[in-house]
Amino acid sequence: MQRSAFFISDGTGITAEALGQSLLAQFANIHFKKLTVPYIDTIEKAQVLVQQINRAATEDNARPIIFDTVVNQQIREVLAQSNGFMVDIFSTFLSPLEQELQEHSSYSVGTSHAIDRNSHYMERMAAVNFALDNDDGARTHYYDQADLILLGVSRSGKTPTCLYLAMQYGVRAANYPLTEEDMEQPKLPTALKPYRHKLFGLTIDPERLSSIRNERRANSRYASIAQCEFEVREVEQLLRREDIPFINSTHFSVEEISARILLEQGIERRLK
Amino acid sequence: MQRSAFFISDGTGITAEALGQSLLAQFANIHFKKLTVPYIDTIEKAQVLVQQINRAATEDNARPIIFDTVVNQQIREVLAQSNGFMVDIFSTFLSPLEQELQEHSSYSVGTSHAIDRNSHYMERMAAVNFALDNDDGARTHYYDQADLILLGVSRSGKTPTCLYLAMQYGVRAANYPLTEEDMEQPKLPTALKPYRHKLFGLTIDPERLSSIRNERRANSRYASIAQCEFEVREVEQLLRREDIPFINSTHFSVEEISARILLEQGIERRLK
Repeated sequence: MQRSAFFISDGTGITAEALGQSLLAQFANIHFKKLTVPYIDTIEKAQVLVQQINRAATEDNARPIIFDTVVNQQIREVLAQSNGFMVDIFSTFLSPLEQELQEHSSYSVGTSHAIDRNSHYMERMAAVNFALDNDDGARTHYYDQADLILLGVSRSGKTPTCLYLAMQYGVRAANYPLTEEDMEQPKLPTALKPYRHKLFGLTIDPERLSSIRNERRANSRYASIAQCEFEVREVEQLLRREDIPFINSTHFSVEEISARILLEQGIERRLK
Repeated sequence: MQRSAFFISDGTGITAEALGQSLLAQFANIHFKKLTVPYIDTIEKAQVLVQQINRAATEDNARPIIFDTVVNQQIREVLAQSNGFMVDIFSTFLSPLEQELQEHSSYSVGTSHAIDRNSHYMERMAAVNFALDNDDGARTHYYDQADLILLGVSRSGKTPTCLYLAMQYGVRAANYPLTEEDMEQPKLPTALKPYRHKLFGLTIDPERLSSIRNERRANSRYASIAQCEFEVREVEQLLRREDIPFINSTHFSVEEISARILLEQGIERRLK
């Protein structure tokens, strides 16, 4: 069974996408054909889109599900004429919010992902640069500026996590790869010692690690199960001994890993 | 005037955050004190949170606004006892969707950002690695695997845009910095020629570019207004002459730049 789903916005479409995806994920037995349609900001674009929605309805033999965050009333009315099932996010929630806040909404287009009203935008971009510059132990002398320093073996997911934390939340995260040399020492690497409260470990199942490393360097010692088992065991021992919090990244997405780290470390999300 | 706003979830909180931010952005005159509270997955955690909400209500002398995507009915009922104004996302939309789809929702927790049901997760992580490996013209021999190649002067926003496209949409984006040497040539750099249809330009106002470059290398020739004006003019000429689409990144966020590029290039978003 297939249903089409449209995420429609006069801005980037990110909010309609996020909400639509969350709601549709609750219907696991249905295969949704998803399409994001951003920048529907004129009547004409909306009319063209209505035809596309109606074609999908005919093809699927079922009404497409429409999640929209279009602010303009006239454009929404055009969309409402389509043969789709509308989940009209703004009209559902804005009116009760206006009443509660005793304030008219500005009904301005796509403000939530725009740069100007977005006080934390520059911080987020600075954090992305920080993550790139302080990736993979490349530099350790700016750790005083870090909100967080991720530790783990090579390919345990440190870099994507740092980038996600920076991009989404403006969190300055550095990462330090624990090498065999570090593992042979009975203590924390010297560069990390002053920043114990910023440290967080990522571990990973050896089988998964080996599979990821094999994509990079097939059949190498680096990718072998024996080596991966050794490194993970040593790193987990080090993290436990030093009482550094850690999570196993194997079954978590970067979104989940990031949310858990921020929660455990009590780091504030700098929201858009 | 200050109001507290809570984005509450039994998962990462990303959906509640995205929707809450979009709706609150419509009330520009009110200062919202925003807090994301992920992983509220037990009655006990909900009870502690209710106390926190009630304290905020007392401090603000106004009900906090609560956006929640908690799936569990019992936990939602605990939250509903707080002195907050509830925007209950799931209960508002799931029941009409169940009716339309003639299927019971699975009421499963936080599935939309989890890894297992997330068929595109591995593609997204591969795209992040692709962006890192093919950043800043570092490699050009994998351009055949790119969905997109961004062109622009140094510090025009190419890298954050590539990373966002990868992380959010699994789009493989490389980037190529146009150097003075490239600008002096009357044609496209050789490495780019075979991939003309994948090229997209980012330009930027010279003043903004100079300010960004000054943060990196203060008072350098590289950061001077004269140099920035020269580079931007040359690159825009090249893009126009070669008929390569481009946008000026100065007043757009990475989210907006990314959405516009995907739309113009007709590149599919690989959604979570």
